[in-house]
Amino acid sequence: MKLTILGCYSATPRTLNNTTSQVLEISNHMFLIDCGEGTQVQLRKHKIKFNRIKHIFISHLHGDHFFGLVGLISTFRLLTRETDLHIYGPVGVKEVVTLQMKLADSWTNYNLIFHELDSKNSELIFEDDEVEVHTIPLNHRIYTNGYLFKEKEGNRKLDINLVEEANINVAYFRKLAQGFDVINEDGVLIKNETVTKPGAKPKSYAFCSDTMYKEDIVPIINNVDVLYHESTFLEKHAHLASKTKHATAKEAARIAKKANVGVLLLGHYSTRYDSINVFKEEAEEVFENVELSEDGKIFDF
Amino acid sequence: MKLTILGCYSATPRTLNNTTSQVLEISNHMFLIDCGEGTQVQLRKHKIKFNRIKHIFISHLHGDHFFGLVGLISTFRLLTRETDLHIYGPVGVKEVVTLQMKLADSWTNYNLIFHELDSKNSELIFEDDEVEVHTIPLNHRIYTNGYLFKEKEGNRKLDINLVEEANINVAYFRKLAQGFDVINEDGVLIKNETVTKPGAKPKSYAFCSDTMYKEDIVPIINNVDVLYHESTFLEKHAHLASKTKHATAKEAARIAKKANVGVLLLGHYSTRYDSINVFKEEAEEVFENVELSEDGKIFDF
Repeated sequence: MKLTILGCYSATPRTLNNTTSQVLEISNHMFLIDCGEGTQVQLRKHKIKFNRIKHIFISHLHGDHFFGLVGLISTFRLLTRETDLHIYGPVGVKEVVTLQMKLADSWTNYNLIFHELDSKNSELIFEDDEVEVHTIPLNHRIYTNGYLFKEKEGNRKLDINLVEEANINVAYFRKLAQGFDVINEDGVLIKNETVTKPGAKPKSYAFCSDTMYKEDIVPIINNVDVLYHESTFLEKHAHLASKTKHATAKEAARIAKKANVGVLLLGHYSTRYDSINVFKEEAEEVFENVELSEDGKIFDF
Repeated sequence: MKLTILGCYSATPRTLNNTTSQVLEISNHMFLIDCGEGTQVQLRKHKIKFNRIKHIFISHLHGDHFFGLVGLISTFRLLTRETDLHIYGPVGVKEVVTLQMKLADSWTNYNLIFHELDSKNSELIFEDDEVEVHTIPLNHRIYTNGYLFKEKEGNRKLDINLVEEANINVAYFRKLAQGFDVINEDGVLIKNETVTKPGAKPKSYAFCSDTMYKEDIVPIINNVDVLYHESTFLEKHAHLASKTKHATAKEAARIAKKANVGVLLLGHYSTRYDSINVFKEEAEEVFENVELSEDGKIFDF
């Protein structure tokens, strides 16, 4: 599981600070999460192949999370993309994009499929053989979802010596990998766990931005390997966090602790602070495994 | 008259190429012309004071000319702007911006005044004591206007020795500057040109992008000091220019020559060419005074 931070600052793009966008590579997917202005240039800078992005998840319709979307869609068209593109986001995202295409008389030559969200409960919005994506309803000034990306249990790993000793026909190997018990050449039932080992542990990533402190999300994100939780402010500006429905670094850490996550990744920093290290220090008072997102940083989890 | 090129490439923003946007400083105004994605960051890079921009002129609603507009408007709000902002552009620009403000529940705390255009004839759209702005109807795939910025004749310059010799009361100095004849203290009519000299020559700038070759614009832009004319292609790709309703460098030069302009400034280059110098070389075969716009370049005319 690889995460590339394209932008992790709040409010407005600046000379050295990009607004929210991330690329998550998980189980052969390349998911784009949020798309602030300038995201397409950040994708180019990081040499991310545009065509590998087939799903874009937009948390909410504040500009710092989606003003780059229409430009990216338009650039995909100019690059003569043919691959389907799925957009997940709040009701309204389709209207904004199609209005601009209509005014420009520029329709995409690929399928653009909108999945508009309006539920206040966590929903399964994408699933294939390898991965699931669920919404995480957040509490911000406008309708907002985080997203939970979960690999499914992978195939079990066959111990080929034990399988041969057990005299199992090759036709049953796939069943074994899927965890089933099988009958061997001698008509004897072979218990799966006697000839296989568990596959790689499935990974999970929860993206939670923008939101104020919201304990209701804990059961949804429980035990995830990595939690990205916004930390727009420090505790000394808790009054601003509350007023603008954002979280502090300490609040993010409290959620991480309650949900027993592996790593807490902070981001969506206000640019009022001289250094982002103070966010890490504050969060570490509550939860020990804290990382800072930074524009251009790549995490291999 | 000072022109800052924030972006001058066509189609899509890239790591090193920005899409169209320019800042024209003329007669104490700071006019922003077009606003491709990333314009607000370019403004910051060039340390242009956001508050000095009171008028934005959008040529047409293709993304490379206006996808940065809503982000800039939104950033003005976050910076607690109070100054009125006037937006000139095709019908539809207001709907795009207000839809996105509605979805974000983010209304501006300053007056945002839209002047939507739909005429096919050149119109006077802005005027004050010092400057006029006219539209230049262009021929592109969708409704498009260029803009002509013209300083008015400035005040005449008084020769203070001659004025004193002529025994003219100080109360008449303003009338003299405005070009009127006046009566002196002895009741004698003093002809204006005997005691004043012409003021500074008024400057003019015509912005023409995007458009195919269109001779109809010549009478509108006749004798301007500086003509920016798009040159997306070279003559060897004239078939593409014709198909996409763009112009070649040579066609831009033909317009410059027919209109007897001072300087031709090329831009809106396709990124298919390795170097932009070829645009200058091609244009110079027709018209001698050619300049190349480049991202970040500043011209003092």
